[in-house]
Amino acid sequence: MAIKSMKDLFIYTLKDIYYAEKQIYKNLPKMAKHANSPGLKAAFEKHREETEHQIERLETIFEQCGTSPRAARCEAIDGIVAEAKEGIEDISDELVRDASMLSAAQAIEHYEISRYGTLIAWANRLGMSDAAKLLQTTLAEEKATDELLSEIGLSEINEKAA
Amino acid sequence: MAIKSMKDLFIYTLKDIYYAEKQIYKNLPKMAKHANSPGLKAAFEKHREETEHQIERLETIFEQCGTSPRAARCEAIDGIVAEAKEGIEDISDELVRDASMLSAAQAIEHYEISRYGTLIAWANRLGMSDAAKLLQTTLAEEKATDELLSEIGLSEINEKAA
Repeated sequence: MAIKSMKDLFIYTLKDIYYAEKQIYKNLPKMAKHANSPGLKAAFEKHREETEHQIERLETIFEQCGTSPRAARCEAIDGIVAEAKEGIEDISDELVRDASMLSAAQAIEHYEISRYGTLIAWANRLGMSDAAKLLQTTLAEEKATDELLSEIGLSEINEKAA
Repeated sequence: MAIKSMKDLFIYTLKDIYYAEKQIYKNLPKMAKHANSPGLKAAFEKHREETEHQIERLETIFEQCGTSPRAARCEAIDGIVAEAKEGIEDISDELVRDASMLSAAQAIEHYEISRYGTLIAWANRLGMSDAAKLLQTTLAEEKATDELLSEIGLSEINEKAA
């Protein structure tokens, strides 16, 4: 896709985060299954439900842009998800494995926080206030998830694992 | 490297961010060169100077861990840097190109914010207070850079490009 305008760039980035959300949706059950900490497991399960709605919101925005939802491969998310999987497979100590998954999950959240922040700024400039509102709802969820993960890290996993 | 303890995981993540910082240091001049906005150009140049010190801090922490500095390939940063390069090469409109580079730079900053946040939590748990202080200095710089980029986006680039 040739990017010639801000609208093109907006749709390009929408495809990137659409791919990312779908990968996250696909991989969260594996992360929840292998989490030792009940708090971490619950956080992954809750976030999977949220992710389903986040994907739906992106599909609504594709419609608002007059285009059908399409994913574009995002190497950054592929890299972080691969790291999470390696942690699950290669680390035998349960607490260290939880700390590794928590770290990967926070890297994922921050990638999303960055992308949604950018998309909101662009939606506002493009006069797409409905899209900006939907993106804002998702951004608030991603920030809350990141904060929850930080709390879990401070209270449970890192303390026991160290 | 087999990860058996929190110390192993700390060093593993240190290698990941060491690689990321080196890639960023290498690529920031290209981004500065192709930035059209004087504010964005100056932000990239300033951040390159900061990155040099951030790399030195990581080298100090490797020493504190009793190991020599080594980078481990980080696919997430490779993906984001590749995206930034594609934007530079493929987008001919100067303002849209600036918006694309700004977006990639904020994705980079958020990756780093997440990694340094994690490393600080682990350093504290491992009783490595000197390392935690160094990491905290870098984290503050990354957050300030992200905020500066947000301001540039709101004030200059996105407004003109939309």
